[in-house]
Amino acid sequence: MSTMETFKATTKILEGGLSVESSSRNFKVILDEPKSLGGTDKGMNPVELVLCALGGCQGIVAKAYAKHKGIDLKDFWVELEGDLDVRGFKGDPNVRPGFQEIRFKMHMKTDASPEQAKEFAKFIENTCPVGDSLANGVSLKLSDVVVEKP
Amino acid sequence: MSTMETFKATTKILEGGLSVESSSRNFKVILDEPKSLGGTDKGMNPVELVLCALGGCQGIVAKAYAKHKGIDLKDFWVELEGDLDVRGFKGDPNVRPGFQEIRFKMHMKTDASPEQAKEFAKFIENTCPVGDSLANGVSLKLSDVVVEKP
Repeated sequence: MSTMETFKATTKILEGGLSVESSSRNFKVILDEPKSLGGTDKGMNPVELVLCALGGCQGIVAKAYAKHKGIDLKDFWVELEGDLDVRGFKGDPNVRPGFQEIRFKMHMKTDASPEQAKEFAKFIENTCPVGDSLANGVSLKLSDVVVEKP
Repeated sequence: MSTMETFKATTKILEGGLSVESSSRNFKVILDEPKSLGGTDKGMNPVELVLCALGGCQGIVAKAYAKHKGIDLKDFWVELEGDLDVRGFKGDPNVRPGFQEIRFKMHMKTDASPEQAKEFAKFIENTCPVGDSLANGVSLKLSDVVVEKP
């Protein structure tokens, strides 16, 4: 049996402004930009959603592995922040459009020692699929462009 | 004036199962895993959310730049898919936990020629901050682990 899974999503643009809707299976999320970046603020923006995906992935890894790793995890939360130079998005060819750095601070409520907690945090960081995708990059392919006349 | 912006998010775990909640500013998203991956399916999973962020980012770039690039864009949508070998997440040290490849197919409703549409698609691909973050990687830093006794 193959261990490769293919996950899917679709994005469509919404009427007006910069808002779009992305969906995967039966779940949806509205994305937009804040007014300061030209949008109408109907949802978080895509780079904020990336931080949400990274934190969410770390939270799920924490929940999935705590018992197995001998950590009695009573609570867990993560604060994330990422720096991005907006000149890249605005067309400056000398500035990358993406994140330059993402930092995360993990909080655990547990009886585990600080050393055990730190080791578990490193395990979470390294096992998280979203973290690996961002830290080590992914092969991205524009597979097709389909043009339809109005 | 600095052109560097710092975006933020927070994730907290929810009661039971693998579900977590990520938020950025006043927006929230619930993440979970499908039953086939051990969750209770209350939301999309983090790697699906990454695909949603990538497609959303491409949609916002398309909307933001179409007029500027001379494209009369009547509609735009993207289908995305990403391959991930679940052995990585399950602990196999020889398999990366993250995506191995992400493909996307852009659809445009426009009077533009196929060549113009293709050129615009490449522009979207290269200007999208989420795409750049994934394609070229980001420096990720576990800045702190804070332990609180129950």
